[in-house]
Amino acid sequence: MSRQPATTDRRIEILKSAAAAFRRRGYHGASVDEIASALEMTKGNLYYYFKNKEEILFACHEYSLGKLLVLMDEVEAESLSPDARLRRLVLAFVHLILDDLHGTALTLDPEALSPPLLKRIIAKRDRFDHGIRTIIQQGIDQGVFKPGDPKMIEFAMMGAINWISKWFDPNGAMTSDQIGDAFADYLVGGLQQ
Amino acid sequence: MSRQPATTDRRIEILKSAAAAFRRRGYHGASVDEIASALEMTKGNLYYYFKNKEEILFACHEYSLGKLLVLMDEVEAESLSPDARLRRLVLAFVHLILDDLHGTALTLDPEALSPPLLKRIIAKRDRFDHGIRTIIQQGIDQGVFKPGDPKMIEFAMMGAINWISKWFDPNGAMTSDQIGDAFADYLVGGLQQ
Repeated sequence: MSRQPATTDRRIEILKSAAAAFRRRGYHGASVDEIASALEMTKGNLYYYFKNKEEILFACHEYSLGKLLVLMDEVEAESLSPDARLRRLVLAFVHLILDDLHGTALTLDPEALSPPLLKRIIAKRDRFDHGIRTIIQQGIDQGVFKPGDPKMIEFAMMGAINWISKWFDPNGAMTSDQIGDAFADYLVGGLQQ
Repeated sequence: MSRQPATTDRRIEILKSAAAAFRRRGYHGASVDEIASALEMTKGNLYYYFKNKEEILFACHEYSLGKLLVLMDEVEAESLSPDARLRRLVLAFVHLILDDLHGTALTLDPEALSPPLLKRIIAKRDRFDHGIRTIIQQGIDQGVFKPGDPKMIEFAMMGAINWISKWFDPNGAMTSDQIGDAFADYLVGGLQQ
């Protein structure tokens, strides 16, 4: 007899299936039916975990941003240099895009969410953006990084990483570790004096 | 009596209206009707310029890539240093995203095009990508740029610029010139030894 997966595991499986469906057909084009049937689940069973498609999209965003914010807390608690902290966050973000929910939560347009849910996602995203900008500013203040506008640098950095989902080929020559290193060398290394 | 705009001008107006509609509602969600009516044109009149929506999307891509390739030719003909050439191309690309068709042609998924049209767009995009990578490689070979993988650097650079269309606020504090300079300082400046 196979072990019954814990509720949390099952929820994450649903998020992965949904992320793949949203990626293939867009949020509006994907149906709860196809998300369920890819997992050999009935729609009724899926509704035990999530009330509707919007709740699934919200959970995707929350899951990805949650992972990034846990790491941000860890990194903020450590006494690393700004470049070491930024490098860790860039690598984690690249891996989240490539290996986890394939970045859906972060590259999909959250505008499909209704205002109260959208507000909660934007608040988390703002916290992450703010954390990145603070590290860039600290690096500039400490003379580790070249002078520049932390907001523009953060937008460029996050855009470069978010865009990976547009060109990444899982059958391509580059592993996610190699992509992570190349991106961190360029995006963080380029800030150094 | 107002002067009748030349055919080319009228075509570009249609592309701009289409770019805005695609941006608002996605390629599949936007209708030829709404593209025409935003210009106070009849649908029949629009069909004088473009046979269908696919042809408009194709023309959007071709217009934007055409501009970039003309500039690539100019830049290749000049005897500037790799960093000066790359800076010019980055600035032009940022302006194309922000001031022209709002980057639609480049950030929209060209997969909506049928295979023969898609192939032509991909060939042009490949030429542009190849041109950027060649300049990065030359910079590395000449010791102007730090060592790195030109393909990964180019992906990061183009992703950062393409992503601008996701966060740019026309009513925001930054002008497109300021964004262009900040991006060139970070993305090209960061390559320098």
